[in-house]
Amino acid sequence: MGKEASRKLEWRINVSDGVSERLEPETGAILRAWTWFKRLMLGGFILKICKFLEKAWNLAVDEPKKVIHGLKVGLAISLVSLFYYMRPLYDGVGGNAMWAVMTVVVVFESSVGATLGKCINRAIGTFLAGSLGVGVHWIAFHSGKNLEPIVLGISLFLLASAATFSRFMPTIKARFDYGIMIFILTFSLVSVSGYRVDRLLELAQQRLSTIAIGASICIIISMLFCPMWAGDELHLLICQNLEKLAHSLDGIHNKTSTAKDEACSKKMKGYRCALNSKATEELKANFARWEPAHGRFSFRHPWKQYLKIGASIRNCAYCIETLHGCVDSETQAPPHLKRHLNNICMRLSSSSSNVLQELAFALKTMKQSSKINLSVGEMNFAVQELKHALISLPNHNISIKNPSPSTVEASGNCNTEPITSIRASSSFMEILPLATLASLLIENAAKIEVIVNGVNELAVLAEFKPTTDNKKSKSNQSPKKLTSENQDPETVKIPQKV
Amino acid sequence: MGKEASRKLEWRINVSDGVSERLEPETGAILRAWTWFKRLMLGGFILKICKFLEKAWNLAVDEPKKVIHGLKVGLAISLVSLFYYMRPLYDGVGGNAMWAVMTVVVVFESSVGATLGKCINRAIGTFLAGSLGVGVHWIAFHSGKNLEPIVLGISLFLLASAATFSRFMPTIKARFDYGIMIFILTFSLVSVSGYRVDRLLELAQQRLSTIAIGASICIIISMLFCPMWAGDELHLLICQNLEKLAHSLDGIHNKTSTAKDEACSKKMKGYRCALNSKATEELKANFARWEPAHGRFSFRHPWKQYLKIGASIRNCAYCIETLHGCVDSETQAPPHLKRHLNNICMRLSSSSSNVLQELAFALKTMKQSSKINLSVGEMNFAVQELKHALISLPNHNISIKNPSPSTVEASGNCNTEPITSIRASSSFMEILPLATLASLLIENAAKIEVIVNGVNELAVLAEFKPTTDNKKSKSNQSPKKLTSENQDPETVKIPQKV
Repeated sequence: MGKEASRKLEWRINVSDGVSERLEPETGAILRAWTWFKRLMLGGFILKICKFLEKAWNLAVDEPKKVIHGLKVGLAISLVSLFYYMRPLYDGVGGNAMWAVMTVVVVFESSVGATLGKCINRAIGTFLAGSLGVGVHWIAFHSGKNLEPIVLGISLFLLASAATFSRFMPTIKARFDYGIMIFILTFSLVSVSGYRVDRLLELAQQRLSTIAIGASICIIISMLFCPMWAGDELHLLICQNLEKLAHSLDGIHNKTSTAKDEACSKKMKGYRCALNSKATEELKANFARWEPAHGRFSFRHPWKQYLKIGASIRNCAYCIETLHGCVDSETQAPPHLKRHLNNICMRLSSSSSNVLQELAFALKTMKQSSKINLSVGEMNFAVQELKHALISLPNHNISIKNPSPSTVEASGNCNTEPITSIRASSSFMEILPLATLASLLIENAAKIEVIVNGVNELAVLAEFKPTTDNKKSKSNQSPKKLTSENQDPETVKIPQKV
Repeated sequence: MGKEASRKLEWRINVSDGVSERLEPETGAILRAWTWFKRLMLGGFILKICKFLEKAWNLAVDEPKKVIHGLKVGLAISLVSLFYYMRPLYDGVGGNAMWAVMTVVVVFESSVGATLGKCINRAIGTFLAGSLGVGVHWIAFHSGKNLEPIVLGISLFLLASAATFSRFMPTIKARFDYGIMIFILTFSLVSVSGYRVDRLLELAQQRLSTIAIGASICIIISMLFCPMWAGDELHLLICQNLEKLAHSLDGIHNKTSTAKDEACSKKMKGYRCALNSKATEELKANFARWEPAHGRFSFRHPWKQYLKIGASIRNCAYCIETLHGCVDSETQAPPHLKRHLNNICMRLSSSSSNVLQELAFALKTMKQSSKINLSVGEMNFAVQELKHALISLPNHNISIKNPSPSTVEASGNCNTEPITSIRASSSFMEILPLATLASLLIENAAKIEVIVNGVNELAVLAEFKPTTDNKKSKSNQSPKKLTSENQDPETVKIPQKV
């Protein structure tokens, strides 16, 4: 193949006397090398493009919403182009139609809330800056030929500086960042172009009408064709994070029971998504506040409460992160002791996971869960069980001598293993990893209660409907605020099946 | 005062027969109420504005950099306005000078990297879209009068959709998000305006030159006047997070020794800043990659390594968050036992804090720390000490019977309290909070070692200079990769003063 290439690469050059001359063989070798190099480079380039396309394909398959958004933007831009293609429209809006195109490109975001927010920001920013610009221009015009550029320049400098600084204020940045940028842009354009063009008001009116056309096309398309609501996304994100925490807790229980496989380990690390979701949650909550009533959400849906719940979910995720670190460290405790404590830890982690799953379900359906109090009771019971097991563990012989009624009740419930087989001499260091795990699980249960309170508050604020089949039991068992004081097994209704 | 107000509020209206008529007293009451309401509203509004201004003032005092950025933007916009105010410049650039203003407003960001990135993105996006737009326009023009709008429309739809979708790809989003938006904008403007305007190439050239003027003004001002480098900010952020973690660990030690005051508790919660810094770090690292060599940083400074260090700092912060939860729970252990364990925990937490402070110092000065190995050795020694204390704790009588040499050595070093006074019968549950604290501190030490490794890798990649005064000791003690295996007290050089 190398030979064939060299045969094909017989280059001829025309020299000045008109005779074509054959290139020397050594040039052929260089050329061959160059071709190889080119192929290699081209191959690498094509490989990169292929990889990129593969990634894009995977993304499109995973999240078809993103493809739909792309098509929506394409549609909106094509529609707005009609203002140039069609004569009658063109005559109406004129050369400023460019601003309609620009509005669509800049304003169209993937969620309805973001698009609406940007449109409103753009409209208000343009209007305010336009009127202020005309005012400043009027003052400058009436202050004489010499002072005019000075007045305009100073006002531009001061307003641009102040507005830019205000973009750093957290309250402004969250909701009006884009509006202020548009304010600066419009004000400088008006005050600058006003110096040349006399028909400022006409220009401003044209500009506003084109922006209105662009913005309304964006809003109509983003709300009518497969609308993506930031509120829906925030709601879903919180539900998913709750479910992921639940799976991670289940994962701990699987891990301690030595069942380790790949799919399980992936599920177990789901809590990591919750660790860094703060920025996303805040962004979505900000966008959601611009959105009108849609689906199950009213206009003034308590989006801020979602942020509170998100914060407590993250708090819980930090604890689970530490928990996973503890599970990884090898325990040297004697196997029977390990099994005994593991069983109780397992029960606590699975009942905690149940609470989280119950919360996720309640949020998803937006109905007051009838089972949540029962699940929390179960979790608190498991906490007490674990505490008793820890108390009666190393100095078991002591606690046997003076048995308190609650200890007997708890140990009677939980011990599948004969407790007398535990050596009193087992070293503290041997049990420590397990004890830490247990202690963190207890801590985690307290954090889960904070989430429960957060969701209960949301249920009140957003007026979640009670579940229809349990209306009777609900009247006795309303979603009261849970505090860590009621963890006492005497006050918690002990479930029949733990 | 109420009477005085009512006297002043004697309104008169002119009726049609020319006689002014006094308003009735009942109308006066309504008016008074209205004035009160207005005052209340106005007061509320003024109060809000005052609060806003106060916040702005505080922000300005806290971070003068933000004020400087505002002034810089004002300066850049005023400068670019010269292109309109001054005749000769105006004649050169023409009506397109608007694009220069727009470029400045949109492109000027607070850090040099962000500004440069946006400028480069804007230039490349405009150039690519411009040439592609002209090409498509040429094809459309040569495909006949009827097909022209169809070809343009379809190409616009397809390109806009594909480009919008590509903005969702993580690799594109991180570096070229703005460029792609500009690509879509320019392509639609070119292909749309090309339908009307015949002098496309001239227009494109004008557009590019104005953008170049705007961009170069931005770059010059952002680089010459008090430049704010994203790289510097990232470097500082990581240093500060390390210091905050160190203070938080010191805080734990203060908290356990029952010294609780306000200032201390604020310092102690500094680790919370590190918990949610991921988004900021990634943003700054992305911007930093656009920046040229400046100060101590070369063009290809390993910014990605900062992200790795940041991740391990966060990991450590999660652990500290759990630790703080443990410290809050009340310990019922007997006081002498509490004091004994507390002393050793304190030593570990303060030596861990030392390591972090040493790392922060090494990063800040960008010099290989000569003390870091010693500090890590001290920390590992404290870990061993704590482990031994835990081993010898509840079944102390057992470990006394068969004393291993290392146990004796460790206990000989650390016990200020006569160890025989510890009751063997102290319940497991009583020591559990302290034991959990100890176990988490040990876990935390392992996480700190990951940070040490990260910083050591950075020292190699960024070629940190060795400290001049310790050159000799450095040759024996190069910054080797630390693993948790060398925690054995026999391999760690025992410091004289712990």
